[in-house]
Amino acid sequence: MPKLVLVRHGQSTANQKNIYTGWNDVPLSELGVEQAIEAGQKLAELEDFNPTMIHTSVLTRAIKTANIIAEQCDFLDLPMNKTWRLNERHYGALRGVNKDITRKIFGDEQVLKWRRSYDAVPPKLGAPITDRRYENLDRILLPQAESLHMASSRILPYYNDSVAPRLRRGEDQLIVAHGSSLRAIVKYFESISNADILHVEVPNAKPIVYDLNHDLSINEIKYL
Amino acid sequence: MPKLVLVRHGQSTANQKNIYTGWNDVPLSELGVEQAIEAGQKLAELEDFNPTMIHTSVLTRAIKTANIIAEQCDFLDLPMNKTWRLNERHYGALRGVNKDITRKIFGDEQVLKWRRSYDAVPPKLGAPITDRRYENLDRILLPQAESLHMASSRILPYYNDSVAPRLRRGEDQLIVAHGSSLRAIVKYFESISNADILHVEVPNAKPIVYDLNHDLSINEIKYL
Repeated sequence: MPKLVLVRHGQSTANQKNIYTGWNDVPLSELGVEQAIEAGQKLAELEDFNPTMIHTSVLTRAIKTANIIAEQCDFLDLPMNKTWRLNERHYGALRGVNKDITRKIFGDEQVLKWRRSYDAVPPKLGAPITDRRYENLDRILLPQAESLHMASSRILPYYNDSVAPRLRRGEDQLIVAHGSSLRAIVKYFESISNADILHVEVPNAKPIVYDLNHDLSINEIKYL
Repeated sequence: MPKLVLVRHGQSTANQKNIYTGWNDVPLSELGVEQAIEAGQKLAELEDFNPTMIHTSVLTRAIKTANIIAEQCDFLDLPMNKTWRLNERHYGALRGVNKDITRKIFGDEQVLKWRRSYDAVPPKLGAPITDRRYENLDRILLPQAESLHMASSRILPYYNDSVAPRLRRGEDQLIVAHGSSLRAIVKYFESISNADILHVEVPNAKPIVYDLNHDLSINEIKYL
């Protein structure tokens, strides 16, 4: 039976400073590196987990976490696909801003909506994204700010085209990504309602293991 | 004008113990990790080097070196292709054996031929290769021992299909591989004769930079 494992990156320097990040590229903190090693060690002990591919975003904190896990698990030789579609949700004008400051300005309720609700869109970024990572993408695909709903619309096509077919062939898969890009997958996978997703959080570097049936229905969920 | 950069992995624990390795999978030594960091720092300072892809083998020592270099150069987001075709030359029955011991048994001249000549084939491995890395390959492709000539025959198709076309489009490329798999590419690239390749060695973690013309003729070679 195939397994799908989801891991959020270890603590980033922005997580540490309680700052919105989104598509900003920030490194792991020292604690984040330790968390990634620990996640790798736990996964290495997971019985009968032999992924045929590792999927991650094009952001350093996720790739570095994926590399550390691969090293701990002796998965370094596996193909690793890095895609903008697994990037964190784009936090728009909030990126780089401290979360407490946004609470003071906009109030707790608005901030909770921006952070956890399905449809709230943060204030838009003023400037276009210029980064080598996105050079070959149609400009129209590049967000100025995303709700979880908008992020899901670009994340799920990747899951459906590049992850699910491998699971259906019985191959284990490993996704190393971000808080909200994984929430989008968890929502889809566990059929969580738009209202209930508000209460779902994915902690740094704690592997979520879906033990699946052949039709990709869930047999068991384990949190390592 | 495109650049092709070749880097041999940092010192492995087998290099350290003066042991033949080939397709055996051994980790980097501590010195090897330091060498890889240094190679990455040098490459980060190389002006106007923006590879679109990193190519490496399926062996841990090369992949780990590639990951370290990518981290130093802010190349982590680049696609990295891992292929058995860039593996080290297969050392047959010599793998795992100390080089001084083979000199005592077979004599300096024979050992030099096995190590550096174009056509000498080391004694064959008795057993078939069983490793997850090669599961999906036709058994007939898996060597029992390789001369540099034999290794070139599986290395150059990869270079020609997956590296050269990108260079021709003007895209810089980075290959992180092994002493002999890189000798095969150096021989081809610099049109070195079968006799002269005996004197060519590729040291650990010293980037070789080919500054190319559009037709892939060599404009300048730099050793960092």
